Amino acid sequence: MSDAERLARVALCRLSEPGDPRMIGLVRDLGAEMVLEHLANERDLGGVLNDVAQRVRGLNPTRDLEWAAKAGARFVIPSDAEWPTQLGDLRHVEKLQERGGEPLGLWVKGKARLNTLAPAIAMVGSRSSTSYGGHVAQEIAATVARKGICVVSGAAVGIDADAHLGALAAGGVTAAVLACGVDRAYPVAHAGLLDYIAEEGAVISEAAPGTQAARIRFLARNRLIAGLGRGTVVVEAALRSGALNTSNWTERLGRALMAVPGPVTSAPSQGSHQLIRSGATLVTNGEEVLELVGRPGEHLTVEPRAPARPRDSLSSRDQQVLDAVPKTSASGADSIARVAGINLLHVQSALGRLHDKGLVQSSDGGWMLTERALS
Amino acid sequence: MSDAERLARVALCRLSEPGDPRMIGLVRDLGAEMVLEHLANERDLGGVLNDVAQRVRGLNPTRDLEWAAKAGARFVIPSDAEWPTQLGDLRHVEKLQERGGEPLGLWVKGKARLNTLAPAIAMVGSRSSTSYGGHVAQEIAATVARKGICVVSGAAVGIDADAHLGALAAGGVTAAVLACGVDRAYPVAHAGLLDYIAEEGAVISEAAPGTQAARIRFLARNRLIAGLGRGTVVVEAALRSGALNTSNWTERLGRALMAVPGPVTSAPSQGSHQLIRSGATLVTNGEEVLELVGRPGEHLTVEPRAPARPRDSLSSRDQQVLDAVPKTSASGADSIARVAGINLLHVQSALGRLHDKGLVQSSDGGWMLTERALS
Repeated sequence: MSDAERLARVALCRLSEPGDPRMIGLVRDLGAEMVLEHLANERDLGGVLNDVAQRVRGLNPTRDLEWAAKAGARFVIPSDAEWPTQLGDLRHVEKLQERGGEPLGLWVKGKARLNTLAPAIAMVGSRSSTSYGGHVAQEIAATVARKGICVVSGAAVGIDADAHLGALAAGGVTAAVLACGVDRAYPVAHAGLLDYIAEEGAVISEAAPGTQAARIRFLARNRLIAGLGRGTVVVEAALRSGALNTSNWTERLGRALMAVPGPVTSAPSQGSHQLIRSGATLVTNGEEVLELVGRPGEHLTVEPRAPARPRDSLSSRDQQVLDAVPKTSASGADSIARVAGINLLHVQSALGRLHDKGLVQSSDGGWMLTERALS
Repeated sequence: MSDAERLARVALCRLSEPGDPRMIGLVRDLGAEMVLEHLANERDLGGVLNDVAQRVRGLNPTRDLEWAAKAGARFVIPSDAEWPTQLGDLRHVEKLQERGGEPLGLWVKGKARLNTLAPAIAMVGSRSSTSYGGHVAQEIAATVARKGICVVSGAAVGIDADAHLGALAAGGVTAAVLACGVDRAYPVAHAGLLDYIAEEGAVISEAAPGTQAARIRFLARNRLIAGLGRGTVVVEAALRSGALNTSNWTERLGRALMAVPGPVTSAPSQGSHQLIRSGATLVTNGEEVLELVGRPGEHLTVEPRAPARPRDSLSSRDQQVLDAVPKTSASGADSIARVAGINLLHVQSALGRLHDKGLVQSSDGGWMLTERALS
């Protein structure tokens, strides 16, 4: 695309709401320059200068780009080598709450090139998270970040912040997608965190610099979080949570949806449990996340297993005899045979095998368990 | 079946281990009387009276039944009207750890007839349960018991005891299946609980009176817990837990397997999470259990939903305008239009609609949110 196309996209970005599928559709069909021209030439009806036309004439995309460059930000469009191509899937997904489509462009602050943010994992969750949820979010983020996978989230308080921090603490890369301009800190308390994210990764927004965060912009933003990740992990989500909106986008995109369970008595886990009940995969740690979103065979989870015990290798009959051997005072083979309900001859040969394995000892003319059998 | 058949089954029950598939297979093919006769006539090889033959001659099933009657126990066999026919499915299920099959008979203490224990739900879990797990087990047991469903468990410490207690506290019916004889209390501390269960439900065992609990008998017992329930709920289960053995039986029987999640940081929930990951249904309360095991349409779960808010019914554009209206100090329609990024005329008509719904108020010549909009 030409520089004129880039400037036109900067202008349209400022003119329209993030993720407005009508604007995105027009640009796809006509190109940004022509759409802008149409809007600028809107006829002045009834002598009152039309609102849109007025606003188009007030735009100055060149100044926007210059200002952004000074503030360390850039505007990336789909024809750039840096474009995160995984967002292209958004073109084929139906809109949700009047939002959808591949963005016209992305404002970016940060050293990471957007095309290097793949593979990425989206992690989202409740703003009213518990210390349990925060702990698990940090653990999972750190584990996947250590494997060179970028952690994408929304820089909100709660689970979002923990996901970013977990990735940063592990020396990994993380990206924050905002509902406001990249020059703004939302929430204000996260100004420092956002600077840190920009230093190590990227702060991204579809909204022009200066734009305030608003509910509908969060909805548009959530689709980008889902669209950047190979899968989404929901850590804690109440029944009415933005995380469920991101989950919805993840499913629409056909990407892996994962959720971390918690106590059924904890409100912030209710949404996670509902997601698992409707098909999301339950995950308990970062390895299980990697297993699900890695390339085939790339990450193989080791199923947690209890340590093997000496008795595990015994035949069921020998186990039965072992169970009948007393712990504290020795007992004769005949008495053991009665308790076990097994023929005396079989008991005697079983006791021999158990003795060889160090599980029973003979004393006072009888048999009892060894320390090893009790371990 | 004749009385002779019943007496023969009493004898074979005492002679063989609970759930020994070889004995159960012989009885199915030849009948109990003939199996007993064969065993009694085993040839005395080498002059030493064979162990089994010797034990057969020492049996006195008539005395066993008399003794049991005095102790308030009875012996129920598959031809009795009282037989819990749902155990018949065990005939068609492959053995597990050398145990399997429909029992030869069941020793029962308690006022409930076994055939009235259906529909039933099995509830199992860790002996090392947490107070969280115990609380949830009691809640679920109480909820299903209130609907007239019997709660079946194993009377162990931990989740088992909580399941029985939850059902009893709700005035419901519960059944305990033991690995020892019904005349014994295992664990000893649960003697009172077992008496209480017998008063309101049933204490059941495949093992003859006097039999001690042993590991292999727990494995045989677990198949009966799974076999009596329409489904099994696992509340907390560590990675090495008898509850996972019961789960295995439940799956073999093609019955519903459910598990309650917990914190991923809690060892007693690890087994539950693994079960959910391999296909068990996550459940968070008794209603969800009823939904899964009820007859079609019998119990319909109401999905938990957050309460509706006034803004939910708005169009996305009106929501967008609402988001741009300030909370504390009034602001003009033109300023709201700029923040919202929407044409002034549209904003004015939206403000009218929002005012009708009581979401915005005009003051000082501007607009701000009402209390209702903030709720």
